[in-house]
Amino acid sequence: MAVRAALLVEELQRKRPLVHCITNYVTANDCANILLAIGASPIMADDPEETGEIAASASALVLNMGTPSRRKLEAMVRAGKSANEAGIPVILDPVGAGASCLRREMAAQIIREVKVDILRGNVSEISFAAGLDFCEKGVDVSEADQGRDRTEAALAAAERLGCTVAVTGSVDVVTDGSRVIRIHGGTPLMARVTGTGCMTSVLSGAFAGAGKDPLTAVSAALAAMGIAGELAFEKAGHIGCGSFHMALLDAVGNLNEKIIRERAKIEER
Amino acid sequence: MAVRAALLVEELQRKRPLVHCITNYVTANDCANILLAIGASPIMADDPEETGEIAASASALVLNMGTPSRRKLEAMVRAGKSANEAGIPVILDPVGAGASCLRREMAAQIIREVKVDILRGNVSEISFAAGLDFCEKGVDVSEADQGRDRTEAALAAAERLGCTVAVTGSVDVVTDGSRVIRIHGGTPLMARVTGTGCMTSVLSGAFAGAGKDPLTAVSAALAAMGIAGELAFEKAGHIGCGSFHMALLDAVGNLNEKIIRERAKIEER
Amino acid sequence: MAVRAALLVEELQRKRPLVHCITNYVTANDCANILLAIGASPIMADDPEETGEIAASASALVLNMGTPSRRKLEAMVRAGKSANEAGIPVILDPVGAGASCLRREMAAQIIREVKVDILRGNVSEISFAAGLDFCEKGVDVSEADQGRDRTEAALAAAERLGCTVAVTGSVDVVTDGSRVIRIHGGTPLMARVTGTGCMTSVLSGAFAGAGKDPLTAVSAALAAMGIAGELAFEKAGHIGCGSFHMALLDAVGNLNEKIIRERAKIEER
Repeated sequence: MAVRAALLVEELQRKRPLVHCITNYVTANDCANILLAIGASPIMADDPEETGEIAASASALVLNMGTPSRRKLEAMVRAGKSANEAGIPVILDPVGAGASCLRREMAAQIIREVKVDILRGNVSEISFAAGLDFCEKGVDVSEADQGRDRTEAALAAAERLGCTVAVTGSVDVVTDGSRVIRIHGGTPLMARVTGTGCMTSVLSGAFAGAGKDPLTAVSAALAAMGIAGELAFEKAGHIGCGSFHMALLDAVGNLNEKIIRERAKIEER
Repeated sequence: MAVRAALLVEELQRKRPLVHCITNYVTANDCANILLAIGASPIMADDPEETGEIAASASALVLNMGTPSRRKLEAMVRAGKSANEAGIPVILDPVGAGASCLRREMAAQIIREVKVDILRGNVSEISFAAGLDFCEKGVDVSEADQGRDRTEAALAAAERLGCTVAVTGSVDVVTDGSRVIRIHGGTPLMARVTGTGCMTSVLSGAFAGAGKDPLTAVSAALAAMGIAGELAFEKAGHIGCGSFHMALLDAVGNLNEKIIRERAKIEER
Repeated sequence: MAVRAALLVEELQRKRPLVHCITNYVTANDCANILLAIGASPIMADDPEETGEIAASASALVLNMGTPSRRKLEAMVRAGKSANEAGIPVILDPVGAGASCLRREMAAQIIREVKVDILRGNVSEISFAAGLDFCEKGVDVSEADQGRDRTEAALAAAERLGCTVAVTGSVDVVTDGSRVIRIHGGTPLMARVTGTGCMTSVLSGAFAGAGKDPLTAVSAALAAMGIAGELAFEKAGHIGCGSFHMALLDAVGNLNEKIIRERAKIEER
């Protein structure tokens, strides 16, 4: 899997997939920059009037539920249907899915009306989005959930939704319902920078837009993000959050097939 | 007061308060990152449909009037009422309050319908928000106001609104109407980075969310921001605005009880 | 022209023009920071209820079509009319003009109802905005357009719209329909950071707000951005996208009359 992830980086950088993001305004800049850094091309658009049209011309669609509204929900559903028709992968990041009724409804409606290929979030977000029973504090995972089995949540969500699910945490778990992949890496400092989750989701979009297989795509994205986090930590972890944030973008921009192949810690059980 | 401010940093870092921000899209990323840096947890949400619910689960609510709209006003009022019911502190940052009728109306309506605990802005913003008579150029304080007495404006606003008021500038003034605190520190370079005011307001929210007393909370936030500004200036002031911006986030992330105690220049008269 | 551009930097830094930006949420932070860096003052406001009033008090108005909506279109038209009445320059950046019907309609309506002084974009955006016939992939210029003659597109657009047009690319072309200016400089790394186009447009607003002549203003902005890109590349190009991004803001903040005069590569044919 590490080899395939590494090769996918090369393919991504050759194809330069256009990734349509309907996302929150808090981390939109980082999401666009990380897409450019990895070698993809971002387009941000969230008005219902244009999202269907834009998704149709993209290579992947990423729906991020941060700073939500009904208007954005409509934009997401239209884009999602258009992406489904065009046959491009749809990634859903149910940011803070447990934080409000609106977010739970959004996740439910998107999942009902759009065929989602990859669902990525922390264990609490995934559980809420998939209608499992967990509780959550804000957009960060609640402490009560820290110890829960990410694998269990990922498998349950994958089965219920029939898609690939990535539950990120100190160890990331990815499953399509039958195969289970674990990706080690990253650094706790990533939780001190807002948007590392959102960035991971758009990277998943970039990799999925460059290849065909959601399981490989999201595994490659998680491995890439983890390695970038480690490289950034080595370089700037001792300096502070701001420097680490910048070094993370540097590191993603410097990733290539060789680094992924050598450093990815992906295990399949 | 410096000792109490220092202790509050420790308490904040232990409690990790969840700070609900209804804020502008220009500086939302910095606001989220500075909350994570200091040790708090941010949640950004601005839709009227969810802000009441989200505020109810937070430890503090920060209302920032940048990039305003009627929809955001409704979101703020709902969140504010919910925060009042839940008994959590409400911080209002009346960004560019003098720049348009819409902003003046927003400030007036929020103050009328929500019990605001802390009002933070420059002398012009505070004066407009409190219905005093000043004039303003854009979101930065006008030169005509530079020489005005921040203390006078702070006291007048605190008296009229019955809340703690922080007027920031080269020397910051905080008052609850009876006690007057002055915080020295910072660097003029902070005015060359957008959002240092917004960041100061969310820090006030984090400190208020960690403790009980608005006067101490906002004094601690201003002291923290001033010290971080000085540390960032020492490190990166000679390099440029971008490096200083990043160093500011580094410095906030490295603040602790000891640094605040040793460096805070807080005087009460 | 290089000398005039250099002198305009001095004038800008003395006048500190207030630049009203109606812009996208992806790059709004960078746009505000680059305005502060060069010595101007930003105000971001996009609600139709206040944009007319705010534009009337500004020195320049920049309309950026990223993350568009009908509401923002209305806000732009109101601001544009107000700017026209006040006699301040209007800069239009038709981000991704070819990406959707909504964007093409927005560009057309703005151009119909507002007197635009400067139109800035890549060759594809300019062509779509001016109703010429080109095709486009996302917000980045399509490869098919790479080889097209920027001068031809700039001249055609300037003639059709009766304004100054800047077509940016590896070599920038500026024309008012009769004079044609070419600005060399910059680095390909600028395409790996989101918003360098948006930043160039707000700098054009700052220079236009400080002086009278659109051709000189936009030429100065393009020269400034190109020089800053080169300085940032020298400093941080080998480190990565994140460091380059930060160094770009550093470099803009350190620009002055002398640097522009010595390094600007502006030719008129």
